[in-house]
Amino acid sequence: MSIRIGIAGIAGRMGRLLAEEVEAAGAMLAGGLRRGEDPAALFAASDVVIDFTHAGTAEAHAAAAMTAGKPLVLGSSGLSAAQEAAVAAAAGTVPIVYAANFATGVNLVLAMAERMAAALPATQYDAEILEMHHRQKVDAPSGTAVALGRAVARGRGTTLEEAGRESGRDGHCGARGTGTIGFAALRGGQVVGEHSLIFAAGAEQIILTHRSFDRRAYATGAVRAALWLQGRAPGLYDMQHVLGMI
Amino acid sequence: MSIRIGIAGIAGRMGRLLAEEVEAAGAMLAGGLRRGEDPAALFAASDVVIDFTHAGTAEAHAAAAMTAGKPLVLGSSGLSAAQEAAVAAAAGTVPIVYAANFATGVNLVLAMAERMAAALPATQYDAEILEMHHRQKVDAPSGTAVALGRAVARGRGTTLEEAGRESGRDGHCGARGTGTIGFAALRGGQVVGEHSLIFAAGAEQIILTHRSFDRRAYATGAVRAALWLQGRAPGLYDMQHVLGMI
Amino acid sequence: MSIRIGIAGIAGRMGRLLAEEVEAAGAMLAGGLRRGEDPAALFAASDVVIDFTHAGTAEAHAAAAMTAGKPLVLGSSGLSAAQEAAVAAAAGTVPIVYAANFATGVNLVLAMAERMAAALPATQYDAEILEMHHRQKVDAPSGTAVALGRAVARGRGTTLEEAGRESGRDGHCGARGTGTIGFAALRGGQVVGEHSLIFAAGAEQIILTHRSFDRRAYATGAVRAALWLQGRAPGLYDMQHVLGMI
Amino acid sequence: MSIRIGIAGIAGRMGRLLAEEVEAAGAMLAGGLRRGEDPAALFAASDVVIDFTHAGTAEAHAAAAMTAGKPLVLGSSGLSAAQEAAVAAAAGTVPIVYAANFATGVNLVLAMAERMAAALPATQYDAEILEMHHRQKVDAPSGTAVALGRAVARGRGTTLEEAGRESGRDGHCGARGTGTIGFAALRGGQVVGEHSLIFAAGAEQIILTHRSFDRRAYATGAVRAALWLQGRAPGLYDMQHVLGMI
Repeated sequence: MSIRIGIAGIAGRMGRLLAEEVEAAGAMLAGGLRRGEDPAALFAASDVVIDFTHAGTAEAHAAAAMTAGKPLVLGSSGLSAAQEAAVAAAAGTVPIVYAANFATGVNLVLAMAERMAAALPATQYDAEILEMHHRQKVDAPSGTAVALGRAVARGRGTTLEEAGRESGRDGHCGARGTGTIGFAALRGGQVVGEHSLIFAAGAEQIILTHRSFDRRAYATGAVRAALWLQGRAPGLYDMQHVLGMI
Repeated sequence: MSIRIGIAGIAGRMGRLLAEEVEAAGAMLAGGLRRGEDPAALFAASDVVIDFTHAGTAEAHAAAAMTAGKPLVLGSSGLSAAQEAAVAAAAGTVPIVYAANFATGVNLVLAMAERMAAALPATQYDAEILEMHHRQKVDAPSGTAVALGRAVARGRGTTLEEAGRESGRDGHCGARGTGTIGFAALRGGQVVGEHSLIFAAGAEQIILTHRSFDRRAYATGAVRAALWLQGRAPGLYDMQHVLGMI
Repeated sequence: MSIRIGIAGIAGRMGRLLAEEVEAAGAMLAGGLRRGEDPAALFAASDVVIDFTHAGTAEAHAAAAMTAGKPLVLGSSGLSAAQEAAVAAAAGTVPIVYAANFATGVNLVLAMAERMAAALPATQYDAEILEMHHRQKVDAPSGTAVALGRAVARGRGTTLEEAGRESGRDGHCGARGTGTIGFAALRGGQVVGEHSLIFAAGAEQIILTHRSFDRRAYATGAVRAALWLQGRAPGLYDMQHVLGMI
Repeated sequence: MSIRIGIAGIAGRMGRLLAEEVEAAGAMLAGGLRRGEDPAALFAASDVVIDFTHAGTAEAHAAAAMTAGKPLVLGSSGLSAAQEAAVAAAAGTVPIVYAANFATGVNLVLAMAERMAAALPATQYDAEILEMHHRQKVDAPSGTAVALGRAVARGRGTTLEEAGRESGRDGHCGARGTGTIGFAALRGGQVVGEHSLIFAAGAEQIILTHRSFDRRAYATGAVRAALWLQGRAPGLYDMQHVLGMI
């Protein structure tokens, strides 16, 4: 019998993508939750619930998961410390995957970036991070680019703040600092997201690139997390657990 | 009988590269000029002279070319207006190729950039220029990157200043402006020079990339210019003439 | 008053994209033609008609364009010599744009490829063409890759057949031939189409890349051709005329 | 006191690179071995010996290392089973690093390729391997490309033979097989070696690229291995041990 997956926020763009991915995975769509509806019925009818709505419902959904004894995949962002504490409390009773980015590739790339940085001496391999996004994006570097920088710093046993970031070079900026992490941003067209981490030495370069073509990758990752949760012990998991990276 | 090529500044790094490229092209090395020597003998013994020394000798070498009635390939940079006028005056008598960059590929890329920009509406195709250089480089964007930006602006019937440059995005920089030209710089390892011009629309991207692996490309281009000058009418030529781009 | 554009095959996937692009361009959708309908009414109601249906209707639509005195944008492929002759005959009375590929970028890249090949000696610059497409594609190299190869050969004053193609290297295939044109094919995911033309010399590389993100680019190009046809003299035009490349 | 490193085959191109890298690492060059010389003196005078000569000397050098009680870095290729057995026997007494490729980046990329393949379902992520080498290379795909393919297969719990390779697509080759590993080869210029492993899904791509700019990377890796061997227990190690990847 196939696994029944419930979707909070099924009427939104992300909800529709999730419903399609549930079907593509050969699972059963147990039902959906619309704004203002009581989550209890959805949790009762589901083997696992996916929630990509917003921070404001995280606490209630975590509580409903706990009450129903059902696992939860939580992709809402911007949770307060109190909301995160409520999620962690529910994870004492049921298994929960909670992550900022569910795209398989991005999580894998973050894990690989840390391992590569640990293996490549910072004195020989300059780490540079390049990202490209659509023309509407208003800030730089992207959150994922910064996460990549943090992963590199972690692999080198330091922090991004201590290593130093060289971002947005323009004008007379001096020679590159040893061990710093560089960032550059391109903007144009409707690029969903492209990130490259470059380790550049004199005799070789290693480049790790991730390209997102649509937001569906987040839905694919969430459904994968939902399937992975079946039979797990209670606890708070990250996408890197789902991917076997931790 | 093969063409005799003379080299001013034959003792320097560029001079040695030039001598090797003369041989590789099947031409004859007519001789070289060292600091302080009189250029008249070299011009007399050569069918064409290549000069990559420095601005200070440009006037004397142009005069020697005119006196000897021999063509000149001039790659020195930083000439004053008076020095450039002297070169132009000599070009009334002998054919001279004078250019800032002799690498075939860079000149071709500049010409292509202008043509592509003329064909792609600036309202639909965002133009972004990415460059990567070795870790010692102290300024950004590179001169060639700026030249690429100027070529794009020219193709669009405007100037880089009027189009507006978005260079070194960092922090909250706002959405991309329509018609502006973006620049981003990477630094690392011993990269001689990599430049990419990206035209990014919603449904497609066109990317033109140039990679320099060593400085020899400048010598190769200069020898090509020297061969091209044989039998030319007097006049001041650019590398884009040599390449058949103008 | 805005231009009225009619669309043959409006019920298909390409027809719907065309209708959207007509609207996006600020033109007026004059109407559409469905399988089996008489084209005369559509041509009468339109200032220009776009036809991306199939070879079997090309002759009838060209005749209808001629009768109505209206320009035609023809994107059907696989026309027989007789069908092409009928199109050419109609072009004696009305202006027609007939092309295999309407994506602006692809046409521009083809034109640039020819010019670059003309400027770069085949003895020094090895030309290699790389393409990537979705996993369902059953043949290699792609039609556009071959078109790129033909453009390079043309620029070098030869044909692809004379230059020789090295396609699908595998096993002991020997050193690269001078002047040949290489092809390599990647397959994976749902890539709409990526093509790179690489000119590789010892000291530098020049790479021209085109990436298609969706098939809409063909619709965008067709509408651009339709607008360009207003007020043109009768004749058979290519997309490279529309783009000002010829 | 700095470590004394001896170099077998010091008169060859690789030997000279090794000598330069020993100096660059701040170690002391203990001496070199030329064809026909007795290795005993070199091992006696060295804390560790690096041998990149050829398979024929591997046995004698391993024996000399064992006799002198000195560690060995062995980069010769093409060893027979008997020669490999002799190396393994010596490794019972002294620590030996023996690997096919000493470039840090290549080894890291091989390790990362296996981990990534383990995390990315073969049904969703098509694995394609692209390599580019200089125009003189006579076979395809490169040994490192095949090693990448083997690493991907290993990560997926299978072998390259079982997974199936699609190499050198040309003509009507049919749709891509699920789980197969694709290979494509470019040839041109003087490219020392470029390898890319692409995991292509519908919604995202992950690309891992390695670029070699000169053969020095092998020498750098070998000296790194030599330093790493100081104080190690006897045993047969791979470069992936040196890099902390195993």
